[in-house]
Amino acid sequence: MIRVTVWNEYRHEKANEKIAAIYPQGIHGAIATGIAGEGVQIRTATLDEPEHGLTGDVLNETDVLIWWGHRAHGEVSDEIVARVHQRVLQGMGLIVLHSGHFSKIFKKLMGTSCDLKWREQGDKERIWVVDPAHPIAEGLGQYFEIEHEEMYGEHFDIPAPDELVFISWFEGGEVFRSGCTYHRGNGKVFYFRPGHETFPTYHNKDVLCVISNAVRWAAPRHGVRQTYGNVKPLETIKSVQ
Amino acid sequence: MIRVTVWNEYRHEKANEKIAAIYPQGIHGAIATGIAGEGVQIRTATLDEPEHGLTGDVLNETDVLIWWGHRAHGEVSDEIVARVHQRVLQGMGLIVLHSGHFSKIFKKLMGTSCDLKWREQGDKERIWVVDPAHPIAEGLGQYFEIEHEEMYGEHFDIPAPDELVFISWFEGGEVFRSGCTYHRGNGKVFYFRPGHETFPTYHNKDVLCVISNAVRWAAPRHGVRQTYGNVKPLETIKSVQ
Amino acid sequence: MIRVTVWNEYRHEKANEKIAAIYPQGIHGAIATGIAGEGVQIRTATLDEPEHGLTGDVLNETDVLIWWGHRAHGEVSDEIVARVHQRVLQGMGLIVLHSGHFSKIFKKLMGTSCDLKWREQGDKERIWVVDPAHPIAEGLGQYFEIEHEEMYGEHFDIPAPDELVFISWFEGGEVFRSGCTYHRGNGKVFYFRPGHETFPTYHNKDVLCVISNAVRWAAPRHGVRQTYGNVKPLETIKSVQ
Amino acid sequence: MIRVTVWNEYRHEKANEKIAAIYPQGIHGAIATGIAGEGVQIRTATLDEPEHGLTGDVLNETDVLIWWGHRAHGEVSDEIVARVHQRVLQGMGLIVLHSGHFSKIFKKLMGTSCDLKWREQGDKERIWVVDPAHPIAEGLGQYFEIEHEEMYGEHFDIPAPDELVFISWFEGGEVFRSGCTYHRGNGKVFYFRPGHETFPTYHNKDVLCVISNAVRWAAPRHGVRQTYGNVKPLETIKSVQ
Repeated sequence: MIRVTVWNEYRHEKANEKIAAIYPQGIHGAIATGIAGEGVQIRTATLDEPEHGLTGDVLNETDVLIWWGHRAHGEVSDEIVARVHQRVLQGMGLIVLHSGHFSKIFKKLMGTSCDLKWREQGDKERIWVVDPAHPIAEGLGQYFEIEHEEMYGEHFDIPAPDELVFISWFEGGEVFRSGCTYHRGNGKVFYFRPGHETFPTYHNKDVLCVISNAVRWAAPRHGVRQTYGNVKPLETIKSVQ
Repeated sequence: MIRVTVWNEYRHEKANEKIAAIYPQGIHGAIATGIAGEGVQIRTATLDEPEHGLTGDVLNETDVLIWWGHRAHGEVSDEIVARVHQRVLQGMGLIVLHSGHFSKIFKKLMGTSCDLKWREQGDKERIWVVDPAHPIAEGLGQYFEIEHEEMYGEHFDIPAPDELVFISWFEGGEVFRSGCTYHRGNGKVFYFRPGHETFPTYHNKDVLCVISNAVRWAAPRHGVRQTYGNVKPLETIKSVQ
Repeated sequence: MIRVTVWNEYRHEKANEKIAAIYPQGIHGAIATGIAGEGVQIRTATLDEPEHGLTGDVLNETDVLIWWGHRAHGEVSDEIVARVHQRVLQGMGLIVLHSGHFSKIFKKLMGTSCDLKWREQGDKERIWVVDPAHPIAEGLGQYFEIEHEEMYGEHFDIPAPDELVFISWFEGGEVFRSGCTYHRGNGKVFYFRPGHETFPTYHNKDVLCVISNAVRWAAPRHGVRQTYGNVKPLETIKSVQ
Repeated sequence: MIRVTVWNEYRHEKANEKIAAIYPQGIHGAIATGIAGEGVQIRTATLDEPEHGLTGDVLNETDVLIWWGHRAHGEVSDEIVARVHQRVLQGMGLIVLHSGHFSKIFKKLMGTSCDLKWREQGDKERIWVVDPAHPIAEGLGQYFEIEHEEMYGEHFDIPAPDELVFISWFEGGEVFRSGCTYHRGNGKVFYFRPGHETFPTYHNKDVLCVISNAVRWAAPRHGVRQTYGNVKPLETIKSVQ
């Protein structure tokens, strides 16, 4: 059983009727419903809950955290960001969606500005699979399309991904590294581009398929427990026996 | 159910009593027994069988192929090598063990000489986990030891691995990249260093744990089916509508 | 002084007047002229010369080999391919252009099919820099355009590049990993996509800038000389002193 | 001309006579002297200077910054760290030495804990070249030795390096990824392990050779100037012409 927490800023949906109509249960609700299934146990958390819904207990019981944020990145407390960061290094998976590229937690894990180009004109996006052996691409065709999306364009200021799974083509002339994996400590991180709040992207079955695959990929195993610091030599005594 | 075929050259065991005593069922038998378990269905194949035991039918029914060879690499027919290569690109996983570094199939997939330094004096080997987030390291400690093994030393002439999971320390003064992953087409390849025929390495529980993990990692998913060649434009007509 | 050999199949230019008009000195001639400059000493070689112009002496005096081929890959002798392969592993740089993706030497170095999608309708190509820190991107803008080119589309069946420098956007709806670096043995390999014979691509200043940068990147240094094979322990005697 | 600034905490040398005897001009002085040569212009800066010697002007005139710190990481001001970080993303090279693994700037660029195992017993260290094609390995043998060094052992909690150039073997039984390259924004980062203050490591010619090579590798080119933010479509208007 993989325990997933879907975190959403949850401000756009409350402030804008058009967005609320697309996501009546919030973006977190749509994702939680969309990836529900066998072997997955899902809860949600949002910015305006105490501790943003991410108490120590919640994080300790979370195998994979999904993150959507946009206009209120600055309101996420540094203390909670440090707590999430620590959990990722301990092994919790983290899936960062769309405008989460500018979240404190993603920037902290990447070490770069995470900046990019963007345009809100509903460009068609075509997402190509460039690593067909990757488990996150399971069940997809050679590409999938989103009829209208916000454009994100290169240069995307991230570290070179450990694995590049998707590249997006945009009608307006840009490309983007849309599916990027990273290992950080014991944890796995996946950045996935689509999901602007004004489009029904999280109702798209291919998008949900990718997020579901990513949850399975990012879930921690019974991983190695590292120790750090001062250690005794393993060999010097033995080697003169 | 993952369908595994363990392929072994199976010559040393028939020619050398000491080796036969370590591996009375052959190296393939020891591995097949050692990784048996739920969710895995195992068969074996050896060099001296017709088509080396790797007929089209066998390969089509194989999800993950494990390869051990040493003194008779040259006797493996180019036709069978091409068949295995094709299946890897289509999605079959391949786990290459120890002296398989010099097999035709591994060299064909790597594109380099795959050469290395070696010494048969029973050095102690200590295998360190350097990517604790990797599923192939699941269930291990921070390192594991093999009391006596053949030494393999750098420079190991391989492409930089997609992911480096293990580095070996040897008593005699060398290091080695011991666990290396690669994607090739739709297939996944894992090279794992230990397993000289004169040592009981494939009875070691950590070594078997790694091979079991690698089987699960390398098993194909319902992967993307690529098409190649001449294609119609996806956009030129649509864009003037 | 970097010694460059520009190798060209040189068949299209002799068989087709339109292509001859674009490349009156052959594609090799255009490239040789286009990248001439301080610190570079250039010669050319073509398929129909004895030993394809790639004698042992020529290769031994070549620091970086540039390769353009298309319709006659099958006529390149396996012996010469093995010779070039050996030189790459020893440290010679190799720059493979456009339809060279299907050359014997590139497939041998990659280990995969190197297949892709293509279309000869003169799509506009926009080549985006995705690794601005890379020396091969030096002097470029954020992207550059080729007004008309053959389209190459993903999936491109290559190993994940060590470094991905460029991604192409095509008017017809595709993307492509257009600038890919690899280390193979002591040698460096760069694949660069543009250059269909029916377009004046090798007169484009940005394309020539990339090839010039790649020559400097791929040139061998006074590299490490590996030895392989059976070795004495470095430590066992010393450690009991 | 590459403009190098060697930054050193410069506290051990002032507090401990034995260390002062090894490095009478400070660690920064030894490095500055050791890498002096054609094409390089060197200055130094230390923690106790105003703004740690890293004013905006100094950084703007620095192509490659070398960083050695140990006991006083916490005294480096966050403002200066942010300034250095910004300059790296803009293209300045950064070479982080030894105990600099725990510096604020390295942790900020890596996004991980950067923790490791250590032991101060003067283990012999043997540094193996695992990427002989890399310019940072130029001029070295297959390995080089440091007779006595502090041991650093895996797991080293860093992102998988873009390129792994060196692996260290330690007498006491450990291994370590000792030479790691990263691109971050327009800048290049190299971590190099050796250099404990109680050993004369920065007088070792192979160590100085590596640092010199790394300076040349990390020096910025006339790189791409990215723009980010809201952009007009490049194609929508053109495509209906």
